[in-house]
Amino acid sequence: MTTYKNNAADEAAIRELISRWSTALEAKDVAGLTADYADHAVLYDAIPPYKTVGPAAIREIWSNCLPHFPESFTTEHRDLKIHVNGDVAFAFGLHRFIPDDPNHPCGNTWMRITVGYHKINGEWKVVHEHVSIPFNPLDNTAWHIKDAEKLDAPDWSQVY
Amino acid sequence: MTTYKNNAADEAAIRELISRWSTALEAKDVAGLTADYADHAVLYDAIPPYKTVGPAAIREIWSNCLPHFPESFTTEHRDLKIHVNGDVAFAFGLHRFIPDDPNHPCGNTWMRITVGYHKINGEWKVVHEHVSIPFNPLDNTAWHIKDAEKLDAPDWSQVY
Repeated sequence: MTTYKNNAADEAAIRELISRWSTALEAKDVAGLTADYADHAVLYDAIPPYKTVGPAAIREIWSNCLPHFPESFTTEHRDLKIHVNGDVAFAFGLHRFIPDDPNHPCGNTWMRITVGYHKINGEWKVVHEHVSIPFNPLDNTAWHIKDAEKLDAPDWSQVY
Repeated sequence: MTTYKNNAADEAAIRELISRWSTALEAKDVAGLTADYADHAVLYDAIPPYKTVGPAAIREIWSNCLPHFPESFTTEHRDLKIHVNGDVAFAFGLHRFIPDDPNHPCGNTWMRITVGYHKINGEWKVVHEHVSIPFNPLDNTAWHIKDAEKLDAPDWSQVY
């Protein structure tokens, strides 16, 4: 088993960025959501368009979708792994919304997230974010991750 | 505009890994596909399961799906961005299959890919890979990226 250890201060800096982002999201603070994004940040969001470039465009995405979130919700990360060294870092794991109303569709699935960081002029900035759920190629539908402990898949015997 | 420059040798090393992976894929060389993967590599694939951990399990995924690819195809990356410093790197961009038979479904979409690397015992290894296409929340279907130049989206006026 290969092992490695992040510098504790670097890892803490990345965790602080993630924590600030979550706080902004739960407060529906659109400016806060991109406060730590680089000018050239590239978002691959879970929904179209497939790519959005730059903090202003990313804020517009959030401005358009936040009204469709419930009035009050919390959020949660799990299985976060962080790799950081020098001025480059990335993190990945799962993220979900926990709406006060358990039937709100925003609570239907965990999302897989990968975030890339670059320390620019001494400050860590998000330069890339990739958010997704898988799709079922048998019927072309999105595949919700309801239970993060379950690594289930479609019945491939239909094709194999 | 913020700027930064990778060390040329580090960036070349990451590009070499990407190139070797493409060569293995086009040769359907399953062992080659994970030759540069760390023991604990975590794959978030475009299709379920949402997560696959370790080279052996990732090879099983490839072994199961490669028979459904056309006999002969090429592959292509575009818009690749690489960030590398010290022993951590990540790359992101688009990837697609170009089947000899243009009607084969594997050629239907670009995929968004993000790959995380860690230099372990002096060798760059893939520790994370995230592959996806977006989904349309209006009808829960996968959203194919047919034209990488087009940042199209569903008609949100149905909901906004």
